[in-house]
Parts: sequence; structure tokens; C-alpha cells
Amino acid sequence: MSFAYHPAFRNFQPTPASIPPRNVVLRQVTPKDKPVYLHNLNPLAFLLRAAQIYPNKLALAHPDTKHPVFYSFSVWCQRVQNLAYALIHAGIRPGDRVAVIAPNSSTFVQDAHFGFLAARCVFTPINTRLKPTEVEYIIEHSGSKLILCDREYLHLLVGVRVPVITCDDTGKPDDPYEQFLAKGREFSAERSWQGLEAEPDENAASTLCYTSGTTGRPKGVVSTLRGAYLATIGNAFESQISRDSTYLWILPMFHAAGWTYPWATVFAFATQITLRTVDYSLIWNHFLRSGVTHYCGAPTVQIGIFNHPKAKRLERGITAIIAGSAPTAHLIGELEKIGIKPCHVYGSTETYGPFTRCYEYPEWKTLSLEDRSKLMARQGQTFATAEVARVVYQPDPDLPLDKVVLVDVPKDGKTIGEIVTKGNIVMKEYLNDPEATKKAFRGGYFNTGDLAVMHPDGSIAIMDRSKDIIISGGEARMSSNASSLAIEQELASHPHILEVSVVARSHPKWGERPVAFVILHPQHAEKWAGRHAEFERDLKEHAKKRLPGFACPEWVEVVPELPKTSTGKILKTELRKRVNNMKGKL
Amino acid sequence: MSFAYHPAFRNFQPTPASIPPRNVVLRQVTPKDKPVYLHNLNPLAFLLRAAQIYPNKLALAHPDTKHPVFYSFSVWCQRVQNLAYALIHAGIRPGDRVAVIAPNSSTFVQDAHFGFLAARCVFTPINTRLKPTEVEYIIEHSGSKLILCDREYLHLLVGVRVPVITCDDTGKPDDPYEQFLAKGREFSAERSWQGLEAEPDENAASTLCYTSGTTGRPKGVVSTLRGAYLATIGNAFESQISRDSTYLWILPMFHAAGWTYPWATVFAFATQITLRTVDYSLIWNHFLRSGVTHYCGAPTVQIGIFNHPKAKRLERGITAIIAGSAPTAHLIGELEKIGIKPCHVYGSTETYGPFTRCYEYPEWKTLSLEDRSKLMARQGQTFATAEVARVVYQPDPDLPLDKVVLVDVPKDGKTIGEIVTKGNIVMKEYLNDPEATKKAFRGGYFNTGDLAVMHPDGSIAIMDRSKDIIISGGEARMSSNASSLAIEQELASHPHILEVSVVARSHPKWGERPVAFVILHPQHAEKWAGRHAEFERDLKEHAKKRLPGFACPEWVEVVPELPKTSTGKILKTELRKRVNNMKGKL
Repeated sequence: MSFAYHPAFRNFQPTPASIPPRNVVLRQVTPKDKPVYLHNLNPLAFLLRAAQIYPNKLALAHPDTKHPVFYSFSVWCQRVQNLAYALIHAGIRPGDRVAVIAPNSSTFVQDAHFGFLAARCVFTPINTRLKPTEVEYIIEHSGSKLILCDREYLHLLVGVRVPVITCDDTGKPDDPYEQFLAKGREFSAERSWQGLEAEPDENAASTLCYTSGTTGRPKGVVSTLRGAYLATIGNAFESQISRDSTYLWILPMFHAAGWTYPWATVFAFATQITLRTVDYSLIWNHFLRSGVTHYCGAPTVQIGIFNHPKAKRLERGITAIIAGSAPTAHLIGELEKIGIKPCHVYGSTETYGPFTRCYEYPEWKTLSLEDRSKLMARQGQTFATAEVARVVYQPDPDLPLDKVVLVDVPKDGKTIGEIVTKGNIVMKEYLNDPEATKKAFRGGYFNTGDLAVMHPDGSIAIMDRSKDIIISGGEARMSSNASSLAIEQELASHPHILEVSVVARSHPKWGERPVAFVILHPQHAEKWAGRHAEFERDLKEHAKKRLPGFACPEWVEVVPELPKTSTGKILKTELRKRVNNMKGKL
Repeated sequence: MSFAYHPAFRNFQPTPASIPPRNVVLRQVTPKDKPVYLHNLNPLAFLLRAAQIYPNKLALAHPDTKHPVFYSFSVWCQRVQNLAYALIHAGIRPGDRVAVIAPNSSTFVQDAHFGFLAARCVFTPINTRLKPTEVEYIIEHSGSKLILCDREYLHLLVGVRVPVITCDDTGKPDDPYEQFLAKGREFSAERSWQGLEAEPDENAASTLCYTSGTTGRPKGVVSTLRGAYLATIGNAFESQISRDSTYLWILPMFHAAGWTYPWATVFAFATQITLRTVDYSLIWNHFLRSGVTHYCGAPTVQIGIFNHPKAKRLERGITAIIAGSAPTAHLIGELEKIGIKPCHVYGSTETYGPFTRCYEYPEWKTLSLEDRSKLMARQGQTFATAEVARVVYQPDPDLPLDKVVLVDVPKDGKTIGEIVTKGNIVMKEYLNDPEATKKAFRGGYFNTGDLAVMHPDGSIAIMDRSKDIIISGGEARMSSNASSLAIEQELASHPHILEVSVVARSHPKWGERPVAFVILHPQHAEKWAGRHAEFERDLKEHAKKRLPGFACPEWVEVVPELPKTSTGKILKTELRKRVNNMKGKL
């Protein structure tokens, strides 16, 4: 049963401070000098509108904790208002950064996505999988004035001298976070939304998300209210989320601010369900019983989903928005088998999440799964509200940054260039890093660092990050450079492989040659136990039929797991370190 | 069969000038001073993106003419580009107004919606049902530099000394409009989109639509690119139109620029079908055979639809976006019976079409059709991308325009105020009429002139235009003022009535009393032939059970038809004239 009609929601008692007064006016006082025909784009509007139109509809469900909470749009909206007043009362001023360290929790992370905008401070989510020193760096670099931290992650705050509001994730009046909200309500003196000044600049900062930074220090990506508003509407439209939808949080909200879904769900009046951890058993409970219609996740999460013992064909389809890396044919096939419709998008923290989508064509229906999957693995074309996505090269790489000229690669599906984009769906800057910003914005575009080709139909297909290209031909000829992604796509079609990652290893004759790290599928692992050399031969045979010689893996390592970033991306830097320590076989 | 797979489309030959070159770059050169993180909102982007992503998908079908045309997105996009160059070649400069007088036709009206933006001139559609003197007034008032006119409407151009491009609506190379496009293509020297400078100001004028003005001269409503972009996305989202949709043009495109649907369909990659006239037989052909999923229309059009002999239950549902006046219970019931889902929205030319929508609630499913229909007839609440809709009064009506203060009426469903709105979905101004603009924008809002109540749930219900309130209590007490709309709603529930309109007639005792003009349903007209006095008694009995005494019609006139504006609104001014000439019975 959907939680919307569940007694758990009907009988839930929010804290007294969360209950809105009768006749609340869901409207801020807007800047006086604004012409009648203009209003600032600001995602905060989505929540005020949802609370106005669907006050009693279930907005947030957080069911699988010791103290489950269920908030309607009107209650949630009051909590957001309380949070804004509480922040102002705590001395937070417009433009200040406030950090959030939390799992996906309905008691305060979603509040923060709107409440910080209402207080005009900058939402600064911190990855919970970082080390204390990394957290310290971000707190310091962002200049955060306050931290909202879930009790489970207090240990990450070592040597931090910024005030902390702790949340026990109970939603009970004695929870320190709820006390903070109650203080906000008190401080508001029932001035309600009319007492909160609307942000007068739509290009003011909305969020500050730090890149996961596989190399070097993480960078602080500053987004704007206008960008967030437009990216949100783009995502809501592209995923066809509506007031009848239920969105399950699997993607961590700290990852590029949840690809705008904390706002997109509200724009569409959808219900959100949160889980503190990625627990596949709980995920399947919700798939089967809570009316879930949408979720986002990297391919590696999808593997966990369709391989779970509870997995079975869903009666009602679910849309999976997939990004992070390209879905393989195997993955797409497995998802479709159980009634999950993949929607492949591509983007980065610097682009509010997705800015391209792999658009499908009716003709594809007649193709084999393998052929269709190859097309579906492409990053595709410009997203609804994005301006443009191009694949370019710099004819003269020696020009200074402010003189850089970008030229499109031919649409031949072969020539490799870099994906660039610009417009409303691009960050404003890297915080306090004009040099990095200037470099990222060279040529008047945001340069993603992702290498890709453009196919004749105009769709983009990532070949690799620049450092992931394998110079396998003995010399730097483009034609014999192997994309590790392309190799991975082909190897993943081996029926006994669960996951595979390919990196380069230096080779005395060829310069570089591919190494494949492979996780065997649990159903087949036993068969190959103690016979990894045989499996290696089998996989090489498989590769030979599908890949040019220079792209076939020279070495195959069967491993129990792959090193991953906190957001589920495979850490190729770690694999390269292992390769550097590999002995023999050369 | 949908036209997308129809041989008529596959075999259609566009003019040579309409065929795009290979490798066309679907991107304009954008202003150099724009930051990387900003791009101007402009609906033109939707077509460039559609031509990029779905070049071969059917965009426009114009099937029921002597020379049917079928254009894919890529061909259409080339035609739009040609039109832009042709306009520039003809001396049109940024900001110039260019008029269009045409029925709904795929050969040039839709071109104009995008081509004028590409040439940075202002799309100025003229109602084809106006008289030559009215057309002359608009041409002169708008200062139009050029007119695109369908041959059928050349007679409207009397004494107009502005150059005219005639369109024969054939799509053939010898059509003067096609020759105009061919000249544009030639003038472009294949500079393509790169040779057309993008508009550098998102608040520049996009369209200039004239109000139908039942009283006084029509006013020129100036819309902006930003407003059009955001209103378009709002409409696309609210109507859930998608790339699988087919939109049938019944609403005239000259009516408030087609409520943004010329752009919304393209944003969604949907197919549009055009008809030169509202022909219910053709409409049913398309409902039954062309995969139609959406259309827009006033309630009076809906009546024509469900009463047509071809009407039958549709296998696949169609969404009808209804505005203009409130749908009655009878109308909603009849539409639902044949599988048409009504989506009731409300707006005006000054608000790009819809800015509120009657949002439905799951609870409504348990209500009777009559009760549910009363709720569905409300104008509802703020639209997706609109800022706010309020119902207000001026406590001090004597304040000067620039000092006006607006106060919300209580949410009691009784107190009558005026609907006001502001923000991106409001026009920029009335052209060359600062006084009218100032008056319309008093209190910092656009004042619609529509009188309404606000229900406790925050939804707006129109009672009437201010002049349509019937002062039926003998004195100006609110409690005995009757809304003609509310009376019409109740009278329309009489099973033998097809359409009804109510106006006031002065009364020696009561001040005013309602007169009802009634069209009988064709199935029941014969029964009452020669017995209209009996029908009058019957209807009065019906009314007494549903309305307070002061709101019951004092007089009933059975008429064969009702006088209507060119956009299908009932002309109450005409009915009032008839009432003034009514003799006896007082």
C-alpha cells in the first residue's frame, strides 16, 4: 500500500512546532522594484506552491528507521519556514554557507534544500564517506558558519570550530534538530512567510557542492537559484514525474544536490521516500509495496538491485534515471526483464546533474537488445532546459586560456574530443578559485574533462576521461588508442561477468596495453573457482571476437570487489596503483 | 494510422528551399558578453533542439487541404531559418512588428511563431474574424512593417499601405509565400543559423496579441521571450504532453498566441495537426484515426465535439485543455463519457493563456458527477511556472493608481474580489498605452477584471466579469447579488439544455433580474417545439430547486444560437442589447 493512504501517515504526529497555523499565507514579500512582469526563478517557490495546492498530500516518508516520520506538504513547508527563522536567529546572514552532513533523511536534509533558500544561505552538503581531514578542509574552504550534522556522523567533525546542530533523526520534540526548529518557530513570532525576505537576485548562490576529486583537493561548485530552478524543471519534464509519482531515494542527496530531485519531486507534487542507507532488501520492499515510480542511481547500484534475491518482475513499471557511467547491454537487459525502464542521462556536479539525455527512437524497438543497448549507452543530446552540448577540440592547444578557440569534432563517431556545455545549467564558479574557474570555462564553455565522440546523428558517446585512454598502438595514433570504456562495454557482454573495469598498463613493445579487473557473477563464480587462468583465456576469446587486437585485454584479474568512490564511481586511480605493483607476465 | 508512419508523410516532397543542407549547425552565435552560466530564455531554442534530436520525426501535418503538407522537424527548422532571412532581406529589423492573418495552417503560421523570433521581430497575429476597419486599426496601431496574409483573408486588407506577402497555403514552389522563403534561403548564402544573431535581451518582445475587446478599441498585449519560454514549459508540464503526443489544432493560433501550444508542442517533440477551420467531422476523423492525444478549446467547442454524429467512445484517452469559460457539469460528464479528460485552466491574453489550473484531488473520485463537476469548474490555483494568483479588493478605491493597496478577500467561497496575478507569466505592457498599462498594473499586479471568490482550499472560482454581476436584491447588498455564471452552471444541469447564457434585465421592483437565453439540445428541441412557455415553466421549476429566489431567471428565451466572439466567448453585450429591446412581461 502506498504510504499516502497508510495509517502510519494518517496517525503520525508531527512536533507541535511543525503544525502550521490556520490561514497561513504561502507567499513571501517580494522586492518592490521588480516589474509586474518578472519574478525571480527560485526553487523555493515549488514548495510554497505544493503546500498551497496539495497541503494534505504525503510529501516525505522516512519509514525504515526507529522513529519513522511522514510529512504532508503543509507540515513540511512549516518545518522549512521554522528552519529559515532558526538559521536567521542563529546569526546566519544572506550568502553565508551552512554545511549539512547527513544520510538521506526526511527529518532534516530535505528541509535544508528549501529552508536554506528561504534563509538566503547556501546549502553546502558534505559527502558522509569522506575522512575527517577532508571534511575539515571543506568546512574551512567553504567558510561554513554552521553545521547541521546527523548524530551518526559527528565523528567526522574533528578539530572543527564551527557551531554544530545535531540531528538524531527522530522527528521527536526532544531531538536537538527539532528543538532548533521550535526555536525558529518561536523567533518567527508567527510572522510566517511574510516575515522572510525573498532573495532579490536570481543569480545568487543556491548550493555549494564539492566535487569528489579523485585527484587533488575537492573544488566547491557554486550553483545559482536560476540554474537550479531551470535544471529542476528540465529533470521533472524529462523523467515525466508527476503528482501520481513516488520517488525512492537511493542516490545520496549530497551527490550533486541529488541531481535536483529534492526540488523536482516537489515541483511535480510527488511523494519522496528516504532510506538512510542503500539497503537492497528495503529497496525491494518499497518497489513491491510502496508504489515507487522513479529512482536515480549509478549503474553499480542497478546491479545490486537486479541481483538481489527479492528481485522479481514488477507489475507496474519503474523509471530508473541512470548516470555516473554508461549502462551496459547486460545491465539494460536485466533491468528491462524486471520491468525497470532505464533513462540514461549524463552530467556532473558542475551542471546540476544531467545536461544530456540519451533520447530513444521508435526505430530502436526492432533492434536486438545488444544493438539497442549500445545506442542506449550513449550520453545522447542536450537536455530540456540546457543550452547546448558539444564535443570539441582546441586546434591550437598553446593559446592562453582567455584566447582558447573550440572547434567541433566531425560527427563521425570516431574522432575524440572533449564534451563542453554552457548556459543556465552550468555552475557559476568554483568557490574562491578563479584560476580553476577560468580553466574550466576556457573558450566560453564549461569543459567537462570527459572525452567523447559525436555520432552522425548528433549524439555524444563518452570514450573516457582523458587519463583513461589507453595508448595501445605503440605510438600516439588515434586509430589504435583504445577507450577503456569501449573495452568494458564489450567485456561486460560476457555472461559470467558482473562488473568489469579496464585500465592501462605500460608495455615494453606497445606502449600500453589494457588490464581488465573482473568481478564474476555470483551464479558463475563457483564454476571458475581455482580456474581463473581458464576464465582469462575464455574472456580473451570473447574479446577477440568483438574488439580490434590492440584493444583486447592483455591481462585479466578476477577480483572480489572494485574500489569505488563514495558516489559509486570506480576508482581507476586505485586500479592503476595496483597495476603499477603487478609483477611478471610482461 | 498516425501520420508519423503514413505514406503521405513519407512520400511528401517539400520545396527545394525547405531541404536543409547536410551537417547544418543548429546553433546561433550567442552574445559574447554573456557569462558561461547564463543563456537567454527564448522559445526558439525548442525548435533547434527538436531538429537536432528528432530531425526526421513528423512535426507538422496539414492534411485536409487541397495541397496537404507534412514537415519533419529538420525541414520545418530550415523553413523557419529561411523565413528569418527573408524577413531580414525584406528590411525587417529587430523589434519591428510583423502581422500575420491566417487560419491555422502548417505552411506558414507555425513558421512565424519561430521565424519571427529568429529574425528578432515581433509576431503580431490578427484575428481573421475581424472587420477590415478593425484590421486596419491593428496594423496601424502596431506599426507593422510587413503582413503575411493567407489568400482567403486578403479582403480584410482594405486601405492598408503595408507590404503584404500572400500565402496560398499550398507548400508548392510557386506559392508566393514559398517564393518568399526561397528568397530568404538564397539571401542566407548558406550562413545557416550561424548567420542569424541571437536576441541579446530575454525581456525583448516576442509577440503582440490584440485583445478581442468587447468594449472599446483592442489593446496590444506585448509578451516577452522569457515569459513565453516559461509559460510554454509550464503548459507542456501541466498537460503532460510528450514526444509520443499528437496535438490537434482546434483553438485558433491567433487567440493569445495559441496559449503557447505552438511552442509547447515543440518543446515536447510532439506532432501538430492543423485544420483551416473548426470542422467537427474532420476533428472526429483525427480523433479516431490520427492518434490525437491533446487539444485546446473553449467549452462551446467541446459541445460541438460531443454532439457530433461521429462522436463515440475513444479507445485511447484524449486530454482537452479547456479555458475561456468554466465547463459545466453536463459538459464534463459528456466529455468523460467518450473518453476525453478535461483539464480546466484559466487565463487571458495578458497572461500567455493559462496561469491557473483546476487541480484535481484523489478524493473527488468518490463524488457524484454533479458535485465533482462543480469543483472542476473552478479556476483553481497557480500554474506551474506562474508566480501567484490572488483574489483581492481595494479597501480604499479612491486612492490614485500608483498608491493602490490590494487586500486578499477571506477564503470563504463567498466574498467577491478581483483575480490578480504577477510575475513571469504576465505581459510586459499594452503597446503604446502607458495609461492602460498603469491601470492594469495597479497595486503591483495585473488586474484581470474577472470577479471571483476564493474557497477555503485556496482555489479560485470566477463569479463573473464585473459587469456581469446581477444586482438582484433591490439594493447593492452582496448577499443578493447574483453571479450570472453561477446561475448558468445550475441551469445547464437541465437535461434538455445545450447551452445557456444569463444577463441582467432592469426590474422596477428588484433593480435587476436574470434573463436566461437558452439553446435546446437537438435531441429535445422537437419535444418543446411550439411549447416554449411550458419549457420556461419547467426550467424555472428546475432553477427553484437549486438557486435562491433572487437568482432564479425571471425570463427565459429559447434561441437557435448565441452571439459569440471570434474566440468562442458568448457576447453578453449583444444579449444585453436584445434585453434592452425586450418588450412586455415587466
